[in-house]
Amino acid sequence: MQRLSTQDAGFEQAFQRLVRERRESDENVARDVSLILADVRNRGDEAVAELTCRFDGHDLTDDASWRIELSACRHAFDALEPGLRAALELAAQRIRAYHEAQKPEDRDFTDEIGVRLGAKWSPVDAAGLYVPGGRAAYPSSLLMNAIPAKVAGVERLVVVTPTPKGIINPLVLGAAYLAGVDEIWRIGGAQAIGALAYGTQHIQAVDVITGPGNAWVAEAKRQLYGVVGIDMVAGPSEILVIADGKNEPEWIAADLLSQAEHDPSSQSILITDDPVFADTVAERVGVEISMLQTARVAEQSWKKHGVIIEVASLDEAPRLANALAAEHVEIATDEPEALFARIRHAGSVFLGRHTPEAVGDYVAGPNHVLPTGRRARFASGLSVLDFMKRTSFIQLDERALAAVGPAAIALAEAEGLPAHARSIETRLGI
Amino acid sequence: MQRLSTQDAGFEQAFQRLVRERRESDENVARDVSLILADVRNRGDEAVAELTCRFDGHDLTDDASWRIELSACRHAFDALEPGLRAALELAAQRIRAYHEAQKPEDRDFTDEIGVRLGAKWSPVDAAGLYVPGGRAAYPSSLLMNAIPAKVAGVERLVVVTPTPKGIINPLVLGAAYLAGVDEIWRIGGAQAIGALAYGTQHIQAVDVITGPGNAWVAEAKRQLYGVVGIDMVAGPSEILVIADGKNEPEWIAADLLSQAEHDPSSQSILITDDPVFADTVAERVGVEISMLQTARVAEQSWKKHGVIIEVASLDEAPRLANALAAEHVEIATDEPEALFARIRHAGSVFLGRHTPEAVGDYVAGPNHVLPTGRRARFASGLSVLDFMKRTSFIQLDERALAAVGPAAIALAEAEGLPAHARSIETRLGI
Repeated sequence: MQRLSTQDAGFEQAFQRLVRERRESDENVARDVSLILADVRNRGDEAVAELTCRFDGHDLTDDASWRIELSACRHAFDALEPGLRAALELAAQRIRAYHEAQKPEDRDFTDEIGVRLGAKWSPVDAAGLYVPGGRAAYPSSLLMNAIPAKVAGVERLVVVTPTPKGIINPLVLGAAYLAGVDEIWRIGGAQAIGALAYGTQHIQAVDVITGPGNAWVAEAKRQLYGVVGIDMVAGPSEILVIADGKNEPEWIAADLLSQAEHDPSSQSILITDDPVFADTVAERVGVEISMLQTARVAEQSWKKHGVIIEVASLDEAPRLANALAAEHVEIATDEPEALFARIRHAGSVFLGRHTPEAVGDYVAGPNHVLPTGRRARFASGLSVLDFMKRTSFIQLDERALAAVGPAAIALAEAEGLPAHARSIETRLGI
Repeated sequence: MQRLSTQDAGFEQAFQRLVRERRESDENVARDVSLILADVRNRGDEAVAELTCRFDGHDLTDDASWRIELSACRHAFDALEPGLRAALELAAQRIRAYHEAQKPEDRDFTDEIGVRLGAKWSPVDAAGLYVPGGRAAYPSSLLMNAIPAKVAGVERLVVVTPTPKGIINPLVLGAAYLAGVDEIWRIGGAQAIGALAYGTQHIQAVDVITGPGNAWVAEAKRQLYGVVGIDMVAGPSEILVIADGKNEPEWIAADLLSQAEHDPSSQSILITDDPVFADTVAERVGVEISMLQTARVAEQSWKKHGVIIEVASLDEAPRLANALAAEHVEIATDEPEALFARIRHAGSVFLGRHTPEAVGDYVAGPNHVLPTGRRARFASGLSVLDFMKRTSFIQLDERALAAVGPAAIALAEAEGLPAHARSIETRLGI
């Protein structure tokens, strides 16, 4: 864990290093992925089956081995422990309610010149959702990706998920049932992304692909950007906690560890104006780690990427937070509003002392798929808009064309595009 | 030009070929571009200057040669022929008005449980806009990219444009003045995109890069997606005209040619239910081409990529249009509304007989940067949202946390994330 103070002479330099640090794996997977994608494009199912056998040890020779039936999802849901089922249902209901309000409104109006203008939103026909296998298969993540797609009106929502040695996570199936997923295919890795983008004999192509995955999955999505729509490239998760000295150290320590336990490359940062509180939290993190089942991961993350920054006043925090543009920002003070008003770059902000980030991961309602690695400077969390697109439209009558047409003709001629000009002139009888 | 009829036995096959055809240059520029980007990242200005000298024959040795002063833009604007200046002003005013209405609204509400939820939009700090040099330097394109950024509230809007052998297009400078561009740098190609994304000694990094360019520029943007935000990958432009037999053949011929004249790889398609009208338009296109200054380009495009599809009834047109998902769709009928209601995938739609696509390129108001190459299945035209991002926020009090917290704890435990659970438990005194 690194300790910084804005009072130190070397602070700006150390802070800039922190801002620029890349925690993302630099594994050179681009070449492997491009070969896999080309193979899937050329050979379709045959390539997918070979790669699935090789990487997942799952045999796709007969038709039944390709898919998980929707009835199996329903059975998995029914078999869930009732408390867990209720928790999933509450999460789904709250996520749905929040995302329903994101649905964009169409526009259609006629201006003073008589030009009718508008924009019409429509969902994509089909969306693909990657769900990692094994330890990182989170039902909450399935809900967060699938529900916005269904709220958008996507008719065909396809899940791909690797089932290494045939093993399937029943929680994920239950969530898929709850979210209304339409198809589930037992494939993973870059080959699954390729199959979704290009289509194969078994799997029809989709228009948008979202969902978390390892470096191969992320690179495959990146390479296919433009062939399909994708959600933002995601890196390791991050939390920035801005806290005064009046917080319970135990609460803040748990918040920092809730990111650290995700991955050894996750990052937790505390900004506080109270050096004694900083010490107590640091100590408390040490104690808490040892009690976690996820201690090994959390400890690696905290040791390597954890940071505590002391500031003379929390007034300095927004500048630092905007430079870090973190995925999650907690403002644990009595009056978080003034600081929040000055935070411009963050994926999601958690206000006050009783809003641990983890409620946002599950049941608050807003999406937990958020920009990481300073991408909050330009990117937003996943939303209904990621599964929709806008068609603008224009309608002129003779009078309106006579009013604005000559300006268009002048510009077309200046740009050396005579047929553009001609298409207006001929209608105006020029 | 290819002639198809839905009545023909081989139609579906020929149509699928048309849908899948890739008109985009497959030049293998990826490797060159990645070397250029790495060079710019490592050596900054030095690399940019060397590459600019090599590719553009423009010398960047002294400081003055890097930038175009804003005063030069103002002079260029003042020196424009008055009719052209007025046309640019009308275009800018109408584009601004249309995009102002795109500004998203923030959300902030408290639900029945007492959970405060919301979303706050903010502009990116800085945006970069690529403007091609030479023939493809369109002032209209500058307006269409720059105005949404300024409407979004972007404080620093940076234009990069190559000035081969020092030559600058005064129309582009005039448009830059009108749009309120803040900086203009005389660099182009992949190296300019790299400079914008990574920053150099002269040029501070930006957060989003938009604007058209050649294959190198497009590939550089694609490779930097995630380091910065970018607009959708753009291919050759397209128009699909759906027209009954009551149109003036001359008007429709001009519309088809207005796309064909852009580039040899542009595509113009006519769908009509009137075979005689189809013949007349085909003939008329031949006549019109010869009168164009852009004849050579238009003829190549029409010969190689032009298509006329005869349908038994225009009722078949929406299905074909949705499969083609074209950048521009004209519906030239008396009552376009019924067909338009069935068009789900299109960049922009032009309704009725008096709405040639060219008015949309210049003065209608909606953006002319639109998804090409069937990307309208999942992508939208450029908008104010491309220069903004959304931060969600959540605030719970003790009572609200007690209400939803236990469900989050159950899910966190099921996902094997004990520190997530702990951050809630400790606040609830569990």
